[in-house]
Amino acid sequence: MWSWHGLTSPIITLTTDFGVGSPYVAAMKGVILAINPDANIVDISHAVPPQDILAGAHMLAVATPWFPPDTVHVAVIDPGVGTARGIVYAQFGRQHYVAPDNGLLSGLARRGPPDRIIAITRREHWAPVVSATFHGRDIMAPVAARLSSGLSPDALGTPQAALVELVWPEVRIVPGKVQGSVTAVDSFGNLITNITQEMLTAAPRGEQTLITCDEHQTQGIFTAYGDQPEMTLLALFGSSGHLELAIVGDSAKMMLGVGVGTPVEVKW
Amino acid sequence: MWSWHGLTSPIITLTTDFGVGSPYVAAMKGVILAINPDANIVDISHAVPPQDILAGAHMLAVATPWFPPDTVHVAVIDPGVGTARGIVYAQFGRQHYVAPDNGLLSGLARRGPPDRIIAITRREHWAPVVSATFHGRDIMAPVAARLSSGLSPDALGTPQAALVELVWPEVRIVPGKVQGSVTAVDSFGNLITNITQEMLTAAPRGEQTLITCDEHQTQGIFTAYGDQPEMTLLALFGSSGHLELAIVGDSAKMMLGVGVGTPVEVKW
Amino acid sequence: MWSWHGLTSPIITLTTDFGVGSPYVAAMKGVILAINPDANIVDISHAVPPQDILAGAHMLAVATPWFPPDTVHVAVIDPGVGTARGIVYAQFGRQHYVAPDNGLLSGLARRGPPDRIIAITRREHWAPVVSATFHGRDIMAPVAARLSSGLSPDALGTPQAALVELVWPEVRIVPGKVQGSVTAVDSFGNLITNITQEMLTAAPRGEQTLITCDEHQTQGIFTAYGDQPEMTLLALFGSSGHLELAIVGDSAKMMLGVGVGTPVEVKW
Repeated sequence: MWSWHGLTSPIITLTTDFGVGSPYVAAMKGVILAINPDANIVDISHAVPPQDILAGAHMLAVATPWFPPDTVHVAVIDPGVGTARGIVYAQFGRQHYVAPDNGLLSGLARRGPPDRIIAITRREHWAPVVSATFHGRDIMAPVAARLSSGLSPDALGTPQAALVELVWPEVRIVPGKVQGSVTAVDSFGNLITNITQEMLTAAPRGEQTLITCDEHQTQGIFTAYGDQPEMTLLALFGSSGHLELAIVGDSAKMMLGVGVGTPVEVKW
Repeated sequence: MWSWHGLTSPIITLTTDFGVGSPYVAAMKGVILAINPDANIVDISHAVPPQDILAGAHMLAVATPWFPPDTVHVAVIDPGVGTARGIVYAQFGRQHYVAPDNGLLSGLARRGPPDRIIAITRREHWAPVVSATFHGRDIMAPVAARLSSGLSPDALGTPQAALVELVWPEVRIVPGKVQGSVTAVDSFGNLITNITQEMLTAAPRGEQTLITCDEHQTQGIFTAYGDQPEMTLLALFGSSGHLELAIVGDSAKMMLGVGVGTPVEVKW
Repeated sequence: MWSWHGLTSPIITLTTDFGVGSPYVAAMKGVILAINPDANIVDISHAVPPQDILAGAHMLAVATPWFPPDTVHVAVIDPGVGTARGIVYAQFGRQHYVAPDNGLLSGLARRGPPDRIIAITRREHWAPVVSATFHGRDIMAPVAARLSSGLSPDALGTPQAALVELVWPEVRIVPGKVQGSVTAVDSFGNLITNITQEMLTAAPRGEQTLITCDEHQTQGIFTAYGDQPEMTLLALFGSSGHLELAIVGDSAKMMLGVGVGTPVEVKW
């Protein structure tokens, strides 16, 4: 499957809730480099809120599709570590994922089913001793390093029919109205919703579109943050194609006192 | 211009206000690696305060000159994204910058004019679809990746005469006195000023030099943080040659309750 | 000593208290890459609490042994920078360290003495000009880059007999009882102690083992965080083999109001 030749290093990304600067992340990097010293390790994020699988699922869906084909993505938001939950390899297109089977890949799976799922069960590819509290270091890092060195995913275990899926915040679409919610807040305090541009193709772009977030309202959907004066509540389609609410020059999250889960309605 | 041969990977640095662990940073890295899988991506900082162009300009001026020749530096502190502000390539010596033309390169430009400025306008080097809210991912990352692969900067657009410059906090020098201000605070809480060692060549090093920061005072300019007892307010020349105020073993920022913009005066 | 051939890049890790996103870290990376552009720089952590040498010593001991042989580890938690404290190269097995000689390598040294110690004194391997406040950039980064390029550690200075050692929090072992303390808190708020699995070989695993942390108590030592219901105080052996106290699904640090230094007792 892989064709690493010439100078190009295989890429392995890491997404965890270990916290920025955690020695656990460093240990995973050490393990990967000890198995495949040519790996190019890229941090996606270690600032996923502790044990927040839904936030991790969003993060993977937003960031990982931008990577080149044959990237191996390791994700460890794993409150059930050491219990009966499985660990899986999943392939989506030409992106490869190693993660606990706890819903963490749900954001990707919602766009289309994985092309392959393998239950990671064959211990010969793991660390010789496996801590019950750190499968990221002792199972997922070694497996990812071996995949990046050319090991076939089929060698990891047996095929599995489906992934565990999270209950995903739904969007309700009725004539003249779309009801969703805030699903992420970025570092600027912008509120990112699960309402996409496609869901609003019927909505006019002008002022007759009314957007309500909690008890706050704004009219019209704009193009850029700079399209309205400072301190104005503004709606636009963000860089992932989702409706976003922003306070120009400030944090909508702080100013409105809202966050993930707050209902957002678009009406016209 | 570039001469990447042998094993050495071209270096691309990233400086943004996206926040540590932001999926936006990860998306930029994915885009870069998808175009140039040999790129060695180095994070300068993603902890620039949101939309603080001056802080970003300081960061670039302090950190980027240490990189080897032919490094490509991408900087995205870009409150005007999607509006009429330009995006530029600028060359300073053998360092190459890709950034919005909003003053972000002012700290570098104050040391000497750029050797070349190109307005980035040719869309064939950008992503096929450009989001109005994320030119970092859709314009600056692809352009930097192509530069690192050997594309000539001249191919990016047309030459431009000058960069947008920020109003920079000024230093007033009169006989026996230099008046400046705090321009940055590091993670230790040390207060870094815009008063340089050269501005103080006339000042005696001994106790007759009086340094005033807000209402706080200290005498003499020392060499190392350890030159005074714990909890003492101490002045010294920091590692970038600027006068710094520190509380030994603690945070001057917290203890004095001051920050960026606080006036600092040296008198003798 | 080194045998870098083929495509594999030499690894240099960085551990500092400069703060995540600090331009000082970026400057060190630039200096390293300017000397050895093939270096693969890996961040261990820049979130060590300011000037907390003990925390840095723990971090190095937990994270660095996972790296492949011939990794060069640079650690800069250096409150005494510019004073008489030395800077050392130390070799532990096939791992190589460059650090101020202030106790930062104590966590490693407790597991076994270093195989070699060299006082770093030969200025020809440093930056031409050395700031009194930033030996990380001007001494340690250049020295590490040169080691990664094949310079023999013996060229750095003269052999030194011993390292400065920290007073390390001790564990008291008496029949039926082990008394230690919390030595680290991870990003989940789990309390990691200096009591190891080996110290408790005599202790039964069952409910007759009583663990006391400050005024809080729990019975039994479990295997995984998921072995008890949410919001339960739970003891287990963590991934480094040390006794850990966790609140399932929450932060033990916050819920119990304790931290580094809190006494922990195991009794049976």
